[in-house]
Amino acid sequence: MEIITDIMSLRVRLQRESSIAFVPTMGNLHAGHLSLVQIARQHAACTVVSIFVNRLQFAPHEDFDRYPRTQENDCRLLKESGADIVFLPDEKTLYPVSQTFQVSLPVMADTLEGACRPGFFRGVATVVLKLFNIVQPQIAVFGQKDFQQLQIIRGMVEQFNLPIEILAGETVRADDGLALSSRNSYLEPKQRQEASQLAWVLQQVKQRVEAGENNFARLEQWAAQRLHERGWKVDYVAVCHQQTLSRATIDDRQYAILGAAWLGQTRLIDNLLFSRP
Amino acid sequence: MEIITDIMSLRVRLQRESSIAFVPTMGNLHAGHLSLVQIARQHAACTVVSIFVNRLQFAPHEDFDRYPRTQENDCRLLKESGADIVFLPDEKTLYPVSQTFQVSLPVMADTLEGACRPGFFRGVATVVLKLFNIVQPQIAVFGQKDFQQLQIIRGMVEQFNLPIEILAGETVRADDGLALSSRNSYLEPKQRQEASQLAWVLQQVKQRVEAGENNFARLEQWAAQRLHERGWKVDYVAVCHQQTLSRATIDDRQYAILGAAWLGQTRLIDNLLFSRP
Repeated sequence: MEIITDIMSLRVRLQRESSIAFVPTMGNLHAGHLSLVQIARQHAACTVVSIFVNRLQFAPHEDFDRYPRTQENDCRLLKESGADIVFLPDEKTLYPVSQTFQVSLPVMADTLEGACRPGFFRGVATVVLKLFNIVQPQIAVFGQKDFQQLQIIRGMVEQFNLPIEILAGETVRADDGLALSSRNSYLEPKQRQEASQLAWVLQQVKQRVEAGENNFARLEQWAAQRLHERGWKVDYVAVCHQQTLSRATIDDRQYAILGAAWLGQTRLIDNLLFSRP
Repeated sequence: MEIITDIMSLRVRLQRESSIAFVPTMGNLHAGHLSLVQIARQHAACTVVSIFVNRLQFAPHEDFDRYPRTQENDCRLLKESGADIVFLPDEKTLYPVSQTFQVSLPVMADTLEGACRPGFFRGVATVVLKLFNIVQPQIAVFGQKDFQQLQIIRGMVEQFNLPIEILAGETVRADDGLALSSRNSYLEPKQRQEASQLAWVLQQVKQRVEAGENNFARLEQWAAQRLHERGWKVDYVAVCHQQTLSRATIDDRQYAILGAAWLGQTRLIDNLLFSRP
């Protein structure tokens, strides 16, 4: 496995590859990321993983500085997973000048995560576009855990005519159901025990929708109340149309249930996708 | 020369090319465009020219509907010029859905043309990014006549890490100095005679700056007044720093003098670039 830090060297190195699959990450890798690497390996001759904590997608008050950076361990895990190249740019490499050209997004980016974290998706889309142009993969793999992000990247690829196929990796969960996330490492032991409640609540909402419940607002309220009572600060629990991420109606077939909530200083997100006949 | 109208066919056709140079146009081609084709041909094995009148860069009150469309003649000229492929998408091909992902631009895009035509450069940058992703050229050629556009495209390529080299073609002028433009065809004979005054006035400003004149505001005023007296409606005459297009200072070395003004219903733009030791 090669570790490459500058753009020119990466471009030269990738010229000799017939097909490239790309997994962009912010590091602090867990089994979720590694499952994306496996998908990548199945779809191209060369798997490139980038590790870059992207300041552009953090608001000033957010956890950019304390975001876990575990580069050495990440590289060890990637080597074991069979990644071919790790792209490890520093900030001056990706942002040599102030990033004044950015991606502006549809209203879908203003709901849910976008409403809670203004500018977040603009920062994500901009760095992903840059990384796509640097790596020029045929395939890129994103985790379904960040489902709204996945849908925004899909939309960007389609509307900007990027010659890239986006693949989604299913959310990898701990035994108790908690979706794996780099931010789980912030949780204290008692919080970690409580954390699986987010997935459990979304699962309850899903089962009730599948069973024919049509009052989605009441379900959302129930879920938020349940988490609130257990000490969570809830940003949202939302029953949405899977494609548009606007609030679902009873005529929809494909649903996404998305949730975001705080345990102490740690913000967790999760989602479930399903269809109703 | 091949004429290709759909994206998939173009991608398949271009796969066998070792190097591609691209000239995006809105058609109604003149010697200025054809000079860009010559530059393209010198830099790659395959020259692709696109013709697409891009609704996204026209404001509702602007001349999208009456913009001259001369496809047959354009294709004839391109064949004579040695272009290899003409990409002729229709609106549904480039905008199958509402273009909700767009390029957001730095403040440089809000001055001069951007101030007179809000949204213009956003529309230009968005369609150019799409075309770049469709054609995937190594080289793209733009006319220096649209100098602010050229600088914005250069900035976008740099900041989005597009693997494309941007080349500029010098402004081609009629014998009397008028910069060639598709919009010149709107001019009535008397207006056409007057039109060269825009270039003449910019030339005067340039000569005075070169001669050491440092009161740029006074020069701008003089130029605008001169055009106004001859019946023009002046949008701006501006002495600018060539890289940033902010107003020039006497410490600058490289200048751009840019002008935009109306003759009747026709808006003309022009510019001159030069250095002062």
